[in-house]
Amino acid sequence: MYIRDILASSSGGEGGGTTSNGDVTVTESTTNTNTNTNKRLDGHQLLVLTDVSRFPELQPGSVWRRRVEQAHPGLRIVVHDQDTWRDRTFPQDLDWAHTTLLLSGAVFPSPDVAPRLEYIQLQSAGADPINQTPIFKETEVAVCTTNGVHGPQIAEWVIGTFLALNHQPSVSIIIIMESPLPFLQRLTSKHRGILGYGSIGRQVARIAKSLAMDVVAYTNHPRPTPESRRDNGYIVPGTGDPDGEFPSAWYSGTDDADIDAFLGSGLDWLVIAVPLTESTRGLISEARLKLLSSVKDSQTPQGQVVVKPFVTNIARGPILDTDALMKALDAGWIRGAAVDVTDPEPLPEGHPLWSKKNLIITPHISAMSNSLGHRIADVLELNLQRFSEGRKLVNQVSRKEGY
Amino acid sequence: MYIRDILASSSGGEGGGTTSNGDVTVTESTTNTNTNTNKRLDGHQLLVLTDVSRFPELQPGSVWRRRVEQAHPGLRIVVHDQDTWRDRTFPQDLDWAHTTLLLSGAVFPSPDVAPRLEYIQLQSAGADPINQTPIFKETEVAVCTTNGVHGPQIAEWVIGTFLALNHQPSVSIIIIMESPLPFLQRLTSKHRGILGYGSIGRQVARIAKSLAMDVVAYTNHPRPTPESRRDNGYIVPGTGDPDGEFPSAWYSGTDDADIDAFLGSGLDWLVIAVPLTESTRGLISEARLKLLSSVKDSQTPQGQVVVKPFVTNIARGPILDTDALMKALDAGWIRGAAVDVTDPEPLPEGHPLWSKKNLIITPHISAMSNSLGHRIADVLELNLQRFSEGRKLVNQVSRKEGY
Repeated sequence: MYIRDILASSSGGEGGGTTSNGDVTVTESTTNTNTNTNKRLDGHQLLVLTDVSRFPELQPGSVWRRRVEQAHPGLRIVVHDQDTWRDRTFPQDLDWAHTTLLLSGAVFPSPDVAPRLEYIQLQSAGADPINQTPIFKETEVAVCTTNGVHGPQIAEWVIGTFLALNHQPSVSIIIIMESPLPFLQRLTSKHRGILGYGSIGRQVARIAKSLAMDVVAYTNHPRPTPESRRDNGYIVPGTGDPDGEFPSAWYSGTDDADIDAFLGSGLDWLVIAVPLTESTRGLISEARLKLLSSVKDSQTPQGQVVVKPFVTNIARGPILDTDALMKALDAGWIRGAAVDVTDPEPLPEGHPLWSKKNLIITPHISAMSNSLGHRIADVLELNLQRFSEGRKLVNQVSRKEGY
Repeated sequence: MYIRDILASSSGGEGGGTTSNGDVTVTESTTNTNTNTNKRLDGHQLLVLTDVSRFPELQPGSVWRRRVEQAHPGLRIVVHDQDTWRDRTFPQDLDWAHTTLLLSGAVFPSPDVAPRLEYIQLQSAGADPINQTPIFKETEVAVCTTNGVHGPQIAEWVIGTFLALNHQPSVSIIIIMESPLPFLQRLTSKHRGILGYGSIGRQVARIAKSLAMDVVAYTNHPRPTPESRRDNGYIVPGTGDPDGEFPSAWYSGTDDADIDAFLGSGLDWLVIAVPLTESTRGLISEARLKLLSSVKDSQTPQGQVVVKPFVTNIARGPILDTDALMKALDAGWIRGAAVDVTDPEPLPEGHPLWSKKNLIITPHISAMSNSLGHRIADVLELNLQRFSEGRKLVNQVSRKEGY
């Protein structure tokens, strides 16, 4: 262990080891009221006690650092590289005496070691790493969790594991993961996803929006008006996107250029949810998977992370070319895939697709549910009623479109 | 194969093999316009050609059947038990000549065999089972998909598999499922879920709502007012439940009776997302898992399906008693569980929990994300700013509450 980095603020003696000395200001800032403020944080020292290699935001020269240093030119930031979750040794040789602000996960000073400490920022949503320590129990130092930070990601885990078990009543799921993958992808913010904006695509969109994803829709025909964006089919109450409100952009058209415009629009996730027709057979070819992969998402806050797309097929096997999928997985054009439908189907024992990494294969069971019969009966009842009244049926297939 | 059931409508010769004969009405109904209606469906025969054992709704005496028979007393319903997906044999001995309406998955008559057919209700969201057949290509018989039926369930699969892969960058997930489980649980409609309404619980609630689940919240302190239901902590934009709008009911209190009232309220899914404090250690005990299990959800449309709860723990291991969890899984009190935290943690090799069925165990990784550093830095920056302005910090831990 050693002090990896000492960075004084731009106004506070950049190369030196001393802070901008302002005793009066320090005194003011120790009383945390609305009347006495010290926006420059003159006299303050923030000790960042964490494995900073995992957190590029906290390292010198980062956008975050520059912003914080501009906002608080009096603040001195000291970074000490230690994974406090794994190494609970107390780093005695640090400048605790002048530390007023601390970021740490699981290692904390005793009150006498850090007498000027005013605020501890934890790295966890829970306070249990600190709540039995003297600095918590015996002082009034403000202690803050990162409550709110973990919600999106943990909620994904909660939902994902719940759904994974719900959808696999009698089979083992074995997912063979390739190592190393880029670390876990977050869903929120600017990453986009989703195509095929029929009934299933719309419900995927609803869930994706709840995960704070951006949704882009592809449809066969253009949907320029609110009316044209509506879902006129059968809708399970509380699901889907009846009015077509979720997508931030709509793509359409069956020409190669149309499809390519959609696939090249920077998708982080391609959900195939189009019907199988002569025009969609083989739609997602090797060239198109390569196109999908070629676009980096420039919106990624961590610019250095290249996010390869994920591909999901719940439509029909022949829409996604099997050889192309295998090549895309082998070549790393996509970071993974999940297919409930395959070509051929059922997928024969010994088929090379079974052995691909980062792939979930299930045997066309994604629609299985103990509510399936109930809902089919519901559609039938609705159409019997409409039929008996001479009204337009729901979900009627167009001979021209073939779906 | 045989005709399992011939059920005439209540007005149309219940025990006999003949329909109520009304030629004029039949003629009217074949012109599907708004002016000529036949609400009784006199002269019509609906052939239900499916594996009806899977679809209790379609069987004689069901609520659905009684409702349809009341609405259309002239309709004769014929049920033929055949899984048309697995057995594509055409059932020649059925009364095709009088069949005007048909429900089928993958077997269809040629136009000459069923000359009076007017409407075919498919069982699939896609029309590909029928779109190459003569009845589709050569006639104008209305063909309807069950588009809209599969959205909720398939969207669950799409999200679940996507999330499962995102959250497992370098480990194999092996889920050993016990067979037979009751078939796949749907999430939508009246089944409830979720407790622990902090930041993580709120984001789980957001996603659950998008899955059309009912959400019930448990909090330590009562939340009787809109103000008290707000989330005053750090919130990733577009996530969570900032105003506390999602729960249909709020439970609170730390007395045994309070906790039991919540756990006994008919939960289909218990998500443990409370902080570890002295009052939550061992909170979910054997007795409480049994209580959770004892309540059948009376809202299930399929009354005969007993839905045992699912348990998720993303909080801290000691909140959910490990022995109790094992007992609940073994005894079938719960249908499954997913735990990202365990007690002890890390879970030692050879621990009996590893061998339990219907259980997902992950090594405290649910919060891992390539956006974790970004968000921690965000909280720190926000609090530096508030601190420098003498304002209240976000996520500050209460010494009294311990979280």
